[in-house]
Amino acid sequence: MKIGVCGTGMVGKSIATKLVALGHDVKMGARSATNEKAAEWAGAVSGDSSQGTFADAADHGEVLFLCVKGEHALAVLESVGADRLSGSVLVDLTNPLDFSNGMPPTLSVCNDDSLGERIQAAYSGARVVKTLNTLNADLMVDPGALADGDHSLFICGDDTAAKATVMTILTEGFGWKDVIDLGGIAQARGLEMWLPLWIRLWGTLGSPSFNLKIVR
Amino acid sequence: MKIGVCGTGMVGKSIATKLVALGHDVKMGARSATNEKAAEWAGAVSGDSSQGTFADAADHGEVLFLCVKGEHALAVLESVGADRLSGSVLVDLTNPLDFSNGMPPTLSVCNDDSLGERIQAAYSGARVVKTLNTLNADLMVDPGALADGDHSLFICGDDTAAKATVMTILTEGFGWKDVIDLGGIAQARGLEMWLPLWIRLWGTLGSPSFNLKIVR
Repeated sequence: MKIGVCGTGMVGKSIATKLVALGHDVKMGARSATNEKAAEWAGAVSGDSSQGTFADAADHGEVLFLCVKGEHALAVLESVGADRLSGSVLVDLTNPLDFSNGMPPTLSVCNDDSLGERIQAAYSGARVVKTLNTLNADLMVDPGALADGDHSLFICGDDTAAKATVMTILTEGFGWKDVIDLGGIAQARGLEMWLPLWIRLWGTLGSPSFNLKIVR
Repeated sequence: MKIGVCGTGMVGKSIATKLVALGHDVKMGARSATNEKAAEWAGAVSGDSSQGTFADAADHGEVLFLCVKGEHALAVLESVGADRLSGSVLVDLTNPLDFSNGMPPTLSVCNDDSLGERIQAAYSGARVVKTLNTLNADLMVDPGALADGDHSLFICGDDTAAKATVMTILTEGFGWKDVIDLGGIAQARGLEMWLPLWIRLWGTLGSPSFNLKIVR
């Protein structure tokens, strides 16, 4: 499948590298078409890897992974434009973390709204699927590295077919065994409000290599 | 141990009943000293059970469990008074759920503050310990009923000795195997902000008999 990945940080690289390893044709998008981190990534992985602008990544992909910092999410999508996003499966991994008052961060939106909902509201033609925002980048694409994959992931979004496409990547591709479908994109509030506890657990446990399992 | 329990709802009854079964001398507090639900509880359990006002419960207990609705928490403590709370171990199980806009509820305080912190700030002499707010009443006192107790609980508070007292009740009394100490009372923000995801999982799973396990 042709897939675009917006973001050159730990999350973007982790997702893009895994997708290439799975045989997908991946274009990593950045602000500039000649971004050095994207060039380094595209040169280092063996497989169908290329780089371009955020808009190029969107043009390239049937599915577009949004892996930028939450504070940049809407600006990045604005540079892509509503036309390119119309009809596309947009996988939203962002968290609205606000570090402006130091650690631990607060959320720039929460409680009666979420970044996932804001993205869907701003681009009504996009088929937004929120997932993978609840854990560390390494574990996102390699859940089996922790407790043989015996832990949980969540997914939500208004478009059932888009969710099914992403679910296949998560389960058959990344190896997730327990992905809980919470419903529509408004459920993103719950997923993003998990972050304040995640961040505190990171501090307490001294490592980001943990996840929650929903025991039922 | 002499213990007070403020609250006659599912959480209060669950906590009070378990404490009596463990051999503690428990007074259930309510707005009125002759509250019918408290009378029914005190009559039904066999052991050291009695009833009174919220203030009576505070006078009775070396440890006081606050098991009222979040919206009533500060008013209940006001009726108890700062003098009675000074020096006492106050176990805060409340969640600032706001149902005024329907389901799912929002939080009346979150992100840069929490109900746990507000309680500690309002009663600086109390030794506030936040715990047990993250799951269903039945599982609070019987973690072994789910997956043989293989799931997690959290605790936080500024007073180390108070946390140790509560920790003993949680582990040796209720049977919790994995209680994660997150640090000071400000960590209550993370614990209370878990609720929006808990509520959505309740809706999705169709039962409140679940909990999270921190896999690490």
